Amino acid sequence: MQLAGIKHRPESEDTAILADHQLLLRLQTALDDVRSVEVLYGDMYLWQDGTPLIHAQMQLGLATQSNQYWTLPVTLPTNRMVYAFLITDQNGDTMGYGEGGFFDDTETNWQTAGNYFHLPYLHLSDAELPPTWVKDTVWYQIFPERFANGDQTNDPTNVQPWGQGPVRRDSFYGGDLKGIIDHLDDLAELGINGLYLCPIFTSPSNHKYDTVDHFAIDPHFGTKADFQALVDGAHARGMRVMLDAVFNHFGDQSPQWQDVIKNGRQSRFADWFHIHDWPVGRDAETGQLNYETFATGAAMPKVNTQNSDVQDYLIDVTKYWIEQFNIDAWRFDVADEVDHGFWRQLCGALRAIKPDVYLLGEAWHSSQALVGNGQFDAVMNYPLTQPIPALFNGDLSLEDYVGKTNLELMMYRQPQQQAMFNAIDTHDTLRLLTTLNGDLVKFRAALTLLMLLPGSPCIYYGTEVAMAGGADPDNRRCMNWQPDATQQKMTDFVQRLIKFRREHTELLASGQLNWQVSGEYLTLTRTDGQVTLHGCFNLGETTVQPKLAGTILLDGGMTERQLAPGGFALIKA
Amino acid sequence: MQLAGIKHRPESEDTAILADHQLLLRLQTALDDVRSVEVLYGDMYLWQDGTPLIHAQMQLGLATQSNQYWTLPVTLPTNRMVYAFLITDQNGDTMGYGEGGFFDDTETNWQTAGNYFHLPYLHLSDAELPPTWVKDTVWYQIFPERFANGDQTNDPTNVQPWGQGPVRRDSFYGGDLKGIIDHLDDLAELGINGLYLCPIFTSPSNHKYDTVDHFAIDPHFGTKADFQALVDGAHARGMRVMLDAVFNHFGDQSPQWQDVIKNGRQSRFADWFHIHDWPVGRDAETGQLNYETFATGAAMPKVNTQNSDVQDYLIDVTKYWIEQFNIDAWRFDVADEVDHGFWRQLCGALRAIKPDVYLLGEAWHSSQALVGNGQFDAVMNYPLTQPIPALFNGDLSLEDYVGKTNLELMMYRQPQQQAMFNAIDTHDTLRLLTTLNGDLVKFRAALTLLMLLPGSPCIYYGTEVAMAGGADPDNRRCMNWQPDATQQKMTDFVQRLIKFRREHTELLASGQLNWQVSGEYLTLTRTDGQVTLHGCFNLGETTVQPKLAGTILLDGGMTERQLAPGGFALIKA
Repeated sequence: MQLAGIKHRPESEDTAILADHQLLLRLQTALDDVRSVEVLYGDMYLWQDGTPLIHAQMQLGLATQSNQYWTLPVTLPTNRMVYAFLITDQNGDTMGYGEGGFFDDTETNWQTAGNYFHLPYLHLSDAELPPTWVKDTVWYQIFPERFANGDQTNDPTNVQPWGQGPVRRDSFYGGDLKGIIDHLDDLAELGINGLYLCPIFTSPSNHKYDTVDHFAIDPHFGTKADFQALVDGAHARGMRVMLDAVFNHFGDQSPQWQDVIKNGRQSRFADWFHIHDWPVGRDAETGQLNYETFATGAAMPKVNTQNSDVQDYLIDVTKYWIEQFNIDAWRFDVADEVDHGFWRQLCGALRAIKPDVYLLGEAWHSSQALVGNGQFDAVMNYPLTQPIPALFNGDLSLEDYVGKTNLELMMYRQPQQQAMFNAIDTHDTLRLLTTLNGDLVKFRAALTLLMLLPGSPCIYYGTEVAMAGGADPDNRRCMNWQPDATQQKMTDFVQRLIKFRREHTELLASGQLNWQVSGEYLTLTRTDGQVTLHGCFNLGETTVQPKLAGTILLDGGMTERQLAPGGFALIKA
Repeated sequence: MQLAGIKHRPESEDTAILADHQLLLRLQTALDDVRSVEVLYGDMYLWQDGTPLIHAQMQLGLATQSNQYWTLPVTLPTNRMVYAFLITDQNGDTMGYGEGGFFDDTETNWQTAGNYFHLPYLHLSDAELPPTWVKDTVWYQIFPERFANGDQTNDPTNVQPWGQGPVRRDSFYGGDLKGIIDHLDDLAELGINGLYLCPIFTSPSNHKYDTVDHFAIDPHFGTKADFQALVDGAHARGMRVMLDAVFNHFGDQSPQWQDVIKNGRQSRFADWFHIHDWPVGRDAETGQLNYETFATGAAMPKVNTQNSDVQDYLIDVTKYWIEQFNIDAWRFDVADEVDHGFWRQLCGALRAIKPDVYLLGEAWHSSQALVGNGQFDAVMNYPLTQPIPALFNGDLSLEDYVGKTNLELMMYRQPQQQAMFNAIDTHDTLRLLTTLNGDLVKFRAALTLLMLLPGSPCIYYGTEVAMAGGADPDNRRCMNWQPDATQQKMTDFVQRLIKFRREHTELLASGQLNWQVSGEYLTLTRTDGQVTLHGCFNLGETTVQPKLAGTILLDGGMTERQLAPGGFALIKA
C-alpha cells in the first residue's frame, strides 16, 4: 500500500459540514492503489458507553495526476464524531488510518480511541455556508465605461464615439449606470441573474481601480439616484448586484495619499500606507519607490490594513453600500495581497449586517487560505477556468486537464466549491474568443464546459455577441449593440446555455461528476441519479460518435449525431 | 517517483512566517523516495521584469511512518513570492511541482508562472506569532484545592485533614490561593516561570469546572485581594499566570441555568444554552436529556456561543481578569467543542487589549483547525506528550514513537509548535509516575525527553516529589509537603532539569531535531550548530554505551558511561 499518498485533514475541505448533522468526508489515497475504503465512526461518548461504531463504505471519486479521492456523505446521530479509515489495497492488504497515522488492522487497535480522528463538536456556523442564492446565479460582468452610454450629459470631455478606434489605456467612451439600467431587460432576457460591476466609485481612470472617493459614484457614471435605480431595477428582475472594492491600494489622487504628499510624516494618514522613508517618492539613486504599491507602479500606493483607522474606514465603506443601496455582494480586488486578519474583521462585520451577503476575493491562484475561516465565501476561480481554453487550444492534454480540474475542485469544501466565481474571461484576461483564435465552435464548447462545472459561472459582457479582445485595454472594447447575424446566433446560444444552467442548477452544483477520456474525446457527466447530463467534446482530428442516448440540448460541429473535429454536444438522459 | 506522497499547502504550516521577510518552507515527499529538492523562488513582478529566480537546496528533515519533510528557511528580498519545487528522486528522475500539480522539468514549464505556488504578499501579522515569552516558559500546573491550605478560615465546613484518606470526587482539603502565595518562593526555587491554575471561580465542586460565577473568586479559595497578591507575587518572581476558563458549559448551579429552570422558555437566558424542548430535563420515556451538555452528564449544560449576548458576556469575563488583575494567559477548557467563530471573536478581543496574551485551547487530539486563523496560540499538546509514557512502557515501538512525534511536530507552524503546551500529565490523566508503574528511572527519563522537545513544558504539581495518582480523582491528591529522602532527590532532579531547559531555551525551541534509533536504544539530538544536546534512552534489556562525547548533565541508571536497561543520559557537547 502506498501509505505516503494517504492523507486526511480534519476540519478542512476533507470534512465539509453540509447541513446540521451532515457532513461530507473525504480521503485521499495514491492513484490506483486502493481497492476500498471503509470508515468507522460514531459519537465518542456513546461508543465508550457501548454503542457500536457505524461502518460505511466510501465511494471512489475524482482523481488527480497522482492521487484519488474517496468520499462519503455522513448523517450523524449526534454532533460529535470519532472516525478512522480501514483501507484495503489492490492486493487485499489492510491498514487502519487515523490522526496518529497508520495502525495495523487489529481488534485492539480499532478499540483504541487515540487511533481515531476527532470532530469534537459540529457547529453548523463553522460550515460557513455561502449564501444559497449564489449557486443558483449566472453572473454577468460589466465594465461600466464600455457597456452602454445611457446619459450623454455626464460624458467626460474627451469622450470618443462609441466603439470607434482602437481602445487605448486612457480612452473614454461614456458608458454609465443609465446605460446599464437601459439594458436590464436585455440582460433579463439573456437569462443572467447576477450583475458584477467593475468599480463605479470616483476615480480619474476609465477602469476606476484607482479609487479616489469610496463613498461617491464617479460623476461620469451617474449619481447615487442612478445607482439606486440600477439596484432596484435589477432586484425587480431577480438579479443580484455585486460591487467591486479596491482595498489593497488607493489611487494616488485619493485625498488620503494627497495629504501624505502634502504633509509628509505629519499627515494624519501617514500610517494609512506602507511608507519606508520620507518624503514619499523615488530614491534619486536607485530609482526605487520608498513605499509599497500594487505591483511596481507608483500610482497605486498600498494601504496599511493593519491600521485600525483604515480598518474602520474600509469597513464603513462596505457597510454603507449595503445599508444604503442594498447591494448583495462585494468583490474585493487583489484580495490575496491584503492580510487575512483584516478580511476576517471585514467579513465578520458585513455578515453581521447582512447574513446572506456574498463576499468574493480576487485571487489568481489556488486559495485555500482565503476561503472560509471567517473570510471569503469564494475566490475568482481562475485555476479552474483557465485550463479550459488551454484544453481547447491543445496546450493541455485531456488527462492533464482533468487532473488539474479535479485538483482544484478538491481544494475547497463542497459548499464553497459550489459558490466559486467561475469567470472564464474578465477585464483582466484576453477575451475567450481571442484566446481561442476566433474559433466560434471552440468558443461555444468552452462556455458549455464552464457551465457544467460546479461553481457560479460568469459571462463577461459582450460574450453573447462573440466579442473579441486581446490583452488589456483591448479586452475592454465598447459593447457591440449592433450584432450581425452570426453574432445574434451567439446571443441565442448563450441564452439557451444560461437557461440550461439555471434549469439544472442543483444538479450542476451538487451532482456527481465523472470524466471519461478516450483518446482525444472527452466526456463530462453530471448526474443526480434522476437526470444525467453529458458534455461531449471532440478534441481530436477525426469524427467521433457519442454513444450516449438522450436529447441533444445544445451542440456545435455535429451532424447526424457525429461530432466533427472540435465539435461538442450537450446531452440530457 | 512516488508523486502521490508529494504535498505542499501554501499559507499553512508548510509556509510558516518566522519574522518580517522570513519564512520556513516545507515540502512533504514519500519516505526514502527523493534524493534532493530544490526550490526556485522570487518576486513575481521582478521575475516578470527579468530578475532571475533564486535556486536553493532544501534540507531533509523529520520523517513519519510514510513520509519525510524537506525544509528551508528563506529570507525574501520583497514581501511577494512565487515558488516551485524541483524534485529529484533516488533514480535521478526529476519533476517540477507547483500549485497546478506536477510538471515536466522543461525550460518552458519553469518559465510558466501558472506552474508555481504563490504567496502573494507576506504580512507579518498573518504569522500570528505567539508571545515570545511562551517558549521561554516552564509551566507548573496547580489544582488549587489540593496544593496548600494557607488560610484555614476559608475552609469548607466538610474539610478533611490534609492528605488524609483516599481522595473522593467530593473531597475537600482546604487548598487555597493563600497556600499558593505561601509557596511562591519554593516554586521560584524549583525554577518554573509560569503558573497554570485550574479554575478558581465560584463553584460548588472541588475542581470548579462547573462555574457558577465567572466574575468571583470561590470564597473557599480566597478573595480578589488574595488573587491580586498572587499575581503580583508571581510577577515579582518573573512568573506568568494563566487562568482556566470553562466556556463550553456552565455549572447547573449558575444563575443563568437556574433562571432557565425557573422561567423556562421565558427566561432571558433561554437562548444561552442548546435546549431542544421544554421544560428542560430528561424525557420520561427515553431518559434522554432535552438539552446539550458536556459529555453525557446533566450537570454541565452546554453554552450557546453563537448567541451574541453570550459572546459579549464571556468576552467581558476574560477581559475583566486581564484588565483588573493583569493575568498573562487564558487556558480554555474543552475548547475543541466550541465553535471556531466564537474563538476568533474572543481571541481578537483579548489580543486587542493585551497583545502578548497567551491563549491556549484544551484539546486532546491533533488540532490544526484550532491554532492560528485568529484563534489560539496553542493547544494542550497531548498527542505529542502521551506517546512518551507509551514508549517507556513498551506499548509503542521506538520507530512508531518517532513517527508519531514527528507527525505531530509537523502539524503546526514552527512558531506555534514552540508555544504548544506540553503537559505530560494533568488533573485529567493518570499521574506520570503511576502510568510508568512507579518506576522512578523511567519517570525521570520521560521528563527529560519532554524537556528536549519543542513546546512549552508543564510540570504537574507534585511531580517534583514523585507523587503517584491514578485516574480522577486520585490524580488530585494533596500536595506532599513532607517529602522523604527519595522524594527530595526527585525535587533536586526536577530543579536541575528545569534549570537545564531554561538555560537552553532558544536551542530547544528552534534548534535542529534528529532521532537515532538503534535497536532499543533511542537518541534525540538537538543542535543549533554551536551547542549540541543528546538525550540517550536505553529502552532495551541490555546495557548500552552511548558513543557520544560531552558532559553528562543528568542521568539515571548510568554507571561508568554505561546505560543499564531503562537508563538515560542527557549529554551536552
